[in-house]
Amino acid sequence: MIQIYTGNGKGKTTAAMGLVLRALGHEMKICIVQFFKNQNFYGEQKILKKFKNLKFYSFIKKHPHLYPASEIKIKDIKKECEKAVVLIEKIMKEKKYDLLILDELNIVIRDKFIELSKIVKLLKEAPKEMEIVMTGRDANKKILKLADLITDMHIIKHPYYDGIKSRKGIDY
Amino acid sequence: MIQIYTGNGKGKTTAAMGLVLRALGHEMKICIVQFFKNQNFYGEQKILKKFKNLKFYSFIKKHPHLYPASEIKIKDIKKECEKAVVLIEKIMKEKKYDLLILDELNIVIRDKFIELSKIVKLLKEAPKEMEIVMTGRDANKKILKLADLITDMHIIKHPYYDGIKSRKGIDY
Repeated sequence: MIQIYTGNGKGKTTAAMGLVLRALGHEMKICIVQFFKNQNFYGEQKILKKFKNLKFYSFIKKHPHLYPASEIKIKDIKKECEKAVVLIEKIMKEKKYDLLILDELNIVIRDKFIELSKIVKLLKEAPKEMEIVMTGRDANKKILKLADLITDMHIIKHPYYDGIKSRKGIDY
Repeated sequence: MIQIYTGNGKGKTTAAMGLVLRALGHEMKICIVQFFKNQNFYGEQKILKKFKNLKFYSFIKKHPHLYPASEIKIKDIKKECEKAVVLIEKIMKEKKYDLLILDELNIVIRDKFIELSKIVKLLKEAPKEMEIVMTGRDANKKILKLADLITDMHIIKHPYYDGIKSRKGIDY
């Protein structure tokens, strides 16, 4: 089954991490593939790494929109994304995991770092018994069509609009 | 700061649990007060109980809407909710925790098991340095007014509408 958490609200990645916690409690095997998230920066990464039922992969530590263009080359990002696609394909073929989290993959697709058609193909061929969870705003319509469950996290009120910065333990 | 996760979509409690995981990673002190959730049934409960930085409370194991009226008396529910209010008040006064999760409290208020005015009073007097997270659909307008961050989890597609039952490790 394919679940999508999208929208402009807070709680997409955290909902996926909550699912990981739930699945760990039932001794399921889990794989997390994260994009744009610096490892050991987010609180959940520090905790989750301790569980042997869980495998953690991280691609592209920073999104180029957030950093000076000179620092990260789009060519390098695409190269790293190629590796991520190969890994995801391998994970799906091996069928070792019950739950696969593809954190921020919607953004990767939106920004054309990975070809949409490649992910569509992977999802279509994904093992039915594997739970696949994709997060990130601006989920592509073709991806949404393939999903069994879609939740739109919609922002109603957000303190960052009032100038409050992101906070350790809450936002990362 | 007060965060609310509401709406008819999946991911409200899981987002809160993801936040717990994040906060644990940064060694914050956490308290979870859950309503309507049978202990040791949900996967996250089994895992979270292992952390010494975290305290877990559970009130009203079942929501009366889900079970025959004869099984649970509204009078007893309200009595248990009184205890929960006393506990929440104590937690806020002691200021021992950095993060307080009030899981499904929105439903408790909606169904009038706790007086709205009592919770409004508690939230108004809550320590500013404590992160308070409330979940549950149909959040009351007066509660929303007090919140700093509101995310509406909106259902776009859900497999249960197609007759698929809730699944272990994913939905509980």
